[in-house]
Amino acid sequence: MPKLWNSTVEQHRHTVHAAILDATAALIAEHGLAVNMSQIAAHVGIGRATLYKYFPDVQAIVAAWHERQVTAHLDHLTSVAAQHQDPGERLRTVLSTYLRLSSTGTHTGHGNHGGGPAAQLATALHQASHMPAAHQRLRELVTAVIAGAADAGVARTDVPTDELATYCLHALAAAAALPSPGSHERLLEVTWAGLLPPR
Amino acid sequence: MPKLWNSTVEQHRHTVHAAILDATAALIAEHGLAVNMSQIAAHVGIGRATLYKYFPDVQAIVAAWHERQVTAHLDHLTSVAAQHQDPGERLRTVLSTYLRLSSTGTHTGHGNHGGGPAAQLATALHQASHMPAAHQRLRELVTAVIAGAADAGVARTDVPTDELATYCLHALAAAAALPSPGSHERLLEVTWAGLLPPR
Repeated sequence: MPKLWNSTVEQHRHTVHAAILDATAALIAEHGLAVNMSQIAAHVGIGRATLYKYFPDVQAIVAAWHERQVTAHLDHLTSVAAQHQDPGERLRTVLSTYLRLSSTGTHTGHGNHGGGPAAQLATALHQASHMPAAHQRLRELVTAVIAGAADAGVARTDVPTDELATYCLHALAAAAALPSPGSHERLLEVTWAGLLPPR
Repeated sequence: MPKLWNSTVEQHRHTVHAAILDATAALIAEHGLAVNMSQIAAHVGIGRATLYKYFPDVQAIVAAWHERQVTAHLDHLTSVAAQHQDPGERLRTVLSTYLRLSSTGTHTGHGNHGGGPAAQLATALHQASHMPAAHQRLRELVTAVIAGAADAGVARTDVPTDELATYCLHALAAAAALPSPGSHERLLEVTWAGLLPPR
């Protein structure tokens, strides 16, 4: 088994794969979702036949791009959580980062209906909740961070931590329906108040 | 213009219309969404040709049924709000009623994917947020009730009331992802804490 050769081929495949996702995201951001395989191949600088060796259609590319985005966001959240020693700060930072990541590109008004490429991408991103594995990882991360804050007396202990995580993720999703960045700060404040030990 | 005759015809149409919605809801609850126009006509006790004078297809009937449900829920919420003089009690009751109405039939587990007729109906109900007029009426009702509670010093005044309404509706939507009725009580408590004046 020529291991080195294998790894080089693997690396090349990986590079092309990533370039296809980047090109598709760029084309969609510019032209909307009505892009086709020929445009994508031209943008990457590969032949159409080669592109089809990687993906059967545009939808599959968008799905792969989407999965990459969600995974990157989850990795980022995980590293943000690891950077904070104080359980309260850690929770606060994870929630504000999640709010920012999940509302990026969606603060164009109420809901994400119609509109330009940004809104279309936002709609695609919204489907993150339909990726069971990613959603599960997100819930587990937020649940663990809340549990740490509860142990430290910062978060309430009268409600199970996984229920508090479900509450947080739903409440913060309201950001997509709130127009201004100022309203996002306030949403974080209000959601946070729900997590505190009862008076 | 034979007014009486007109009103009788109108009343008859209304009765048949309602019977079609009832029959369709009953058939879907029993058999799932795979019902057809012949089954519905037979269940109502009218001919297929008559049914087609009312609705072009099953989808249109489900949409009309759905709109009727949502309107009935909104009417109920409005009357619940009117029954309470105390602004804090009014807000509390409106939120708990909304939580109960919006999670009816959805406490079958996490999300509403797959599953039986109840889950399918729940999915249809979830699309309430895509009925702009109904959603607007809901937001206005909750915003007004929160404003009353804010004036009375029960709810916080440092966040605009329409933002608090958006927060509430999103946070309470978490009920669909929470399994037990006990968790719904706790969700109400947590969401409520977010609405209180800051400490």
